[in-house]
Amino acid sequence: MSDPKKPVAPSEQEIGVVVPQAQHFDTPLLLQCGKTLPEYEIVYETYGTLNPEKSNAVLICHALSGHHHAAGYHSVDDKRPGWWNACIGPNKPLDTNTFFIVSINNLGGCHGSTGPKSLNPETQKAYGPDFPIVTSKDWVESQARLADLLEIKQWAAVVGGSLGGMQALQWAIDYPERLRHSVVIAAAPILSAQNIAFNEIARKAILSDPEFHGGHYYETDSFPKTGLILARMLGHITYLSDEAMREKFGRELRAGELKFDYDIEFQVESYLNYQGEEFSKNFDANTYLLMTRALDYFDPAAEYNNDLTQALSRAKCRFMVMSFTTDWRFSPERSQEIVDALIEADKEVSYAEIDCPQGHDSFLLDIPRYTALFTAYMDGIAQEINQ
Amino acid sequence: MSDPKKPVAPSEQEIGVVVPQAQHFDTPLLLQCGKTLPEYEIVYETYGTLNPEKSNAVLICHALSGHHHAAGYHSVDDKRPGWWNACIGPNKPLDTNTFFIVSINNLGGCHGSTGPKSLNPETQKAYGPDFPIVTSKDWVESQARLADLLEIKQWAAVVGGSLGGMQALQWAIDYPERLRHSVVIAAAPILSAQNIAFNEIARKAILSDPEFHGGHYYETDSFPKTGLILARMLGHITYLSDEAMREKFGRELRAGELKFDYDIEFQVESYLNYQGEEFSKNFDANTYLLMTRALDYFDPAAEYNNDLTQALSRAKCRFMVMSFTTDWRFSPERSQEIVDALIEADKEVSYAEIDCPQGHDSFLLDIPRYTALFTAYMDGIAQEINQ
Repeated sequence: MSDPKKPVAPSEQEIGVVVPQAQHFDTPLLLQCGKTLPEYEIVYETYGTLNPEKSNAVLICHALSGHHHAAGYHSVDDKRPGWWNACIGPNKPLDTNTFFIVSINNLGGCHGSTGPKSLNPETQKAYGPDFPIVTSKDWVESQARLADLLEIKQWAAVVGGSLGGMQALQWAIDYPERLRHSVVIAAAPILSAQNIAFNEIARKAILSDPEFHGGHYYETDSFPKTGLILARMLGHITYLSDEAMREKFGRELRAGELKFDYDIEFQVESYLNYQGEEFSKNFDANTYLLMTRALDYFDPAAEYNNDLTQALSRAKCRFMVMSFTTDWRFSPERSQEIVDALIEADKEVSYAEIDCPQGHDSFLLDIPRYTALFTAYMDGIAQEINQ
Repeated sequence: MSDPKKPVAPSEQEIGVVVPQAQHFDTPLLLQCGKTLPEYEIVYETYGTLNPEKSNAVLICHALSGHHHAAGYHSVDDKRPGWWNACIGPNKPLDTNTFFIVSINNLGGCHGSTGPKSLNPETQKAYGPDFPIVTSKDWVESQARLADLLEIKQWAAVVGGSLGGMQALQWAIDYPERLRHSVVIAAAPILSAQNIAFNEIARKAILSDPEFHGGHYYETDSFPKTGLILARMLGHITYLSDEAMREKFGRELRAGELKFDYDIEFQVESYLNYQGEEFSKNFDANTYLLMTRALDYFDPAAEYNNDLTQALSRAKCRFMVMSFTTDWRFSPERSQEIVDALIEADKEVSYAEIDCPQGHDSFLLDIPRYTALFTAYMDGIAQEINQ
């Protein structure tokens, strides 16, 4: 929830107002699926200042429902900061006094970068279902092209949580020379059958919504709102731990007493419906489909005999892997698989399993032990830069 | 999956063909929600023979999607046995050589007992959404009335898994004199916020299906199939452990290679869709809504100052509580809450936590350690009867 009292002016902890930027790319991008994007636009934000050596740049990769607006505010009246404001800003783990932070909206997104709701130059209509499925590999490629334009030869670090962490991992494999650190938070080396199963139900809810119109709903006056709400509600359950939900809602009733019907009885129902409803106002259903498939398809070992160790042997950076005890979407065991492969590949890796009740969403929050460890690791990177 | 080679003739392990029975009740039933069912029918099956002392009767309570057909076959050509055939039959834990087993379809169900698709005598149309929400307390009451008619004053045991286990617990509180043992398997003393959240999404999928027609779909030529499929797919994920899904499907592709679209790519998607589709052919959406609400509302401590120990202090029976290590729907911790309250209430309780990978569905399966412990406990009851 946003805090209306939050300061939007730059301060010891806040970046203040930030302005998104857009970059058009004319060079076609060949995607993993075999299709080509003839041209595209990437929207991004930057926080902090690039040093003359261009050695302090950090790339932030976003998760399923994220976008470029990771920190700060979009206006002085803006009540809601970027999605990772807890971790990005002056004197925060990703310290804007030290780092030049680049945060982009991934291709296929719905917040400005080219995606399903963008105009297809071939048809002059929205791409809709014709927008090709992009993967983490494609994102890394598009992010590398933006880095070229920004003249960033090597990231001090590529950082992300969840699907963002997967991109940080993919970077280390695909562009070993172009990053010094990979910070992989609350991620997994590949989705489990259960992860895919949840995604499939979310997609089915959207695809079977009569307002979906085969993905061509932009040409109608409606959109698959119910399907998108269902998808988000389901996702939301997997972001919270059982413990966190119990703590937050227990079995509290909305009306104080049972009504014995199928309307909302319990606070947790009310909360989930509200979250789904709000999400549906700001997210595109075709992008939701695409992002869940990008998760399903994430498989960095695929090109290396399905051997994660072999894949990670290519890496030249150092790694920080973090997980959260109550995360059941990507449990600590999944992070440990990454760590084990890194050790087997003889890479330098730090690993922290944070004991906290908040579940998968922990990576977005200011949890003291997490913040402290994250800060310490990033401080180490800062020291390397200043040496 | 059914095994077409399974014997349907009575044997050392199989009951053979069973015939459901129906019992009409004219006495109105006042429900927990405050409404009254003026008359109703209960469909049930029995396995084994009631002894002259009527002391060997065991009541089976079913879970969300269960019904009266718990064991045996409905015809010699029947390829699929009842849902708990693994545990009911000659020389099985619920041994039909010893016990007279009664298995009923709960009120509100869709397999013969009065429920939403039954005729409302007041309107001469299907009840549909006007069928009142029934709870575990109501089921216990209706089950007690059937016991009266069968002249069973006291059950040797009331037994159930999941929502069935909750009814076994409710029996011990509501009719302490009428059972000697309560066998509570893979259950919880009350639903968690996460449990309710999953139910809410399942209900929303059904309620928002355009074919739901406010629950009056019986009068149309369709039904909320997609919503029911989504609900079942979601439920199904919670019945299996992450481990079991990984073991069963991994990330195996249906077509051998990625197609990069939103059709079914992975075996786990195919399986879930198939399960949902099959389920939708044999289950009623209004009943699904009702059963999930009965779960949400289960709260045996509510009448006793929200104190489970106080509630269970009323009990006079002995208890067997069983849980499964990989059950994340109702985890072992939830069973332990029941056990702790029973100990605090100074009741006699045996508890077994079975280490197995199958998740919540374990209670339906022939898992050697589970079967052995279940058999041992039921053998003890048999010895009491024969004394």
